[in-house]
Amino acid sequence: MKVVVLRWGHRPRDLRVTSHVALTARAFGASGLVLADTKDKSIESTVNKIVGRWGGSFEFEMDVPWRSYVRSWKKKGGTTVHLTVYGENIQTSDVIHRIKKTKKDVLVLVGSQKVPSEFYDEDISDFNVAVGNQPHSEISSLAIFLHQLFGGEELCREFRNAKLRVIPSNRGKRIISE
Amino acid sequence: MKVVVLRWGHRPRDLRVTSHVALTARAFGASGLVLADTKDKSIESTVNKIVGRWGGSFEFEMDVPWRSYVRSWKKKGGTTVHLTVYGENIQTSDVIHRIKKTKKDVLVLVGSQKVPSEFYDEDISDFNVAVGNQPHSEISSLAIFLHQLFGGEELCREFRNAKLRVIPSNRGKRIISE
Repeated sequence: MKVVVLRWGHRPRDLRVTSHVALTARAFGASGLVLADTKDKSIESTVNKIVGRWGGSFEFEMDVPWRSYVRSWKKKGGTTVHLTVYGENIQTSDVIHRIKKTKKDVLVLVGSQKVPSEFYDEDISDFNVAVGNQPHSEISSLAIFLHQLFGGEELCREFRNAKLRVIPSNRGKRIISE
Repeated sequence: MKVVVLRWGHRPRDLRVTSHVALTARAFGASGLVLADTKDKSIESTVNKIVGRWGGSFEFEMDVPWRSYVRSWKKKGGTTVHLTVYGENIQTSDVIHRIKKTKKDVLVLVGSQKVPSEFYDEDISDFNVAVGNQPHSEISSLAIFLHQLFGGEELCREFRNAKLRVIPSNRGKRIISE
């Protein structure tokens, strides 16, 4: 199952938050991040730097028109999941089970500012998922969603061609540099 | 078990990231956030606004000297957990089990900029925990750590005295305003 994250509504002031979204997407097993309808060279450079050092094949695209990206994703047989505080509760509902059962590639829609109401409709989002129904952070929501989707195995993956690797340790810092 | 989050190394440019840390702490069941060694009225106001509308009794303190706070926490019988990419992997080790087994209140140390090396020592951190050993976000780390500590029940809690409540829904927005 391939997972891509689409970040909607990014503005220059969201630089650090969107960078965290991108790095969370990568570290939690997504294969890429699409920055919708805008460019941000700083995020591109952050992502490229991390991938260069820490490995893997995470893809970053920007200035992608979101509507046509979503349409084409669905046309190719993928499903779409919109993370929103108003959605089905990931803990109390069976929504993760139903998403997995589709066995489709997943496009995760992550908003920033208030999203247009059409995001909640079937045309755009097959599923509306809430990581709890309290306001918090799109970064936390993405992390928990991917963690539940991949069942925790995403946190033990090896990243190919890594120049840096951490040796997990109860004290201090152990890092292998190649 | 009471959980408090201590945010270390906050700078003005971290405003939005630290706000996400605070809201994640609240939404994922912590009882408060301590902003170490600095003041930030904007974060205080964000937290107060959310608590006023969405309920619960989340406490926010700022300008707290971190060393004496950690010492006093440990003196009162609490344990301390430092979230770091270099720590024991939360997924592949038994570290969460060992933390729960202490049955102590937990102070979670969340860095921002590079933390001093003493953070890794026993004097400060009883446990060094990594949410995967890839770089990503202190916000994601905090969310996953609390999610594993509370076993998911944190995502279904009721918040007392809430003026706003979401009714989870597969389409659209349903919200009760009291």
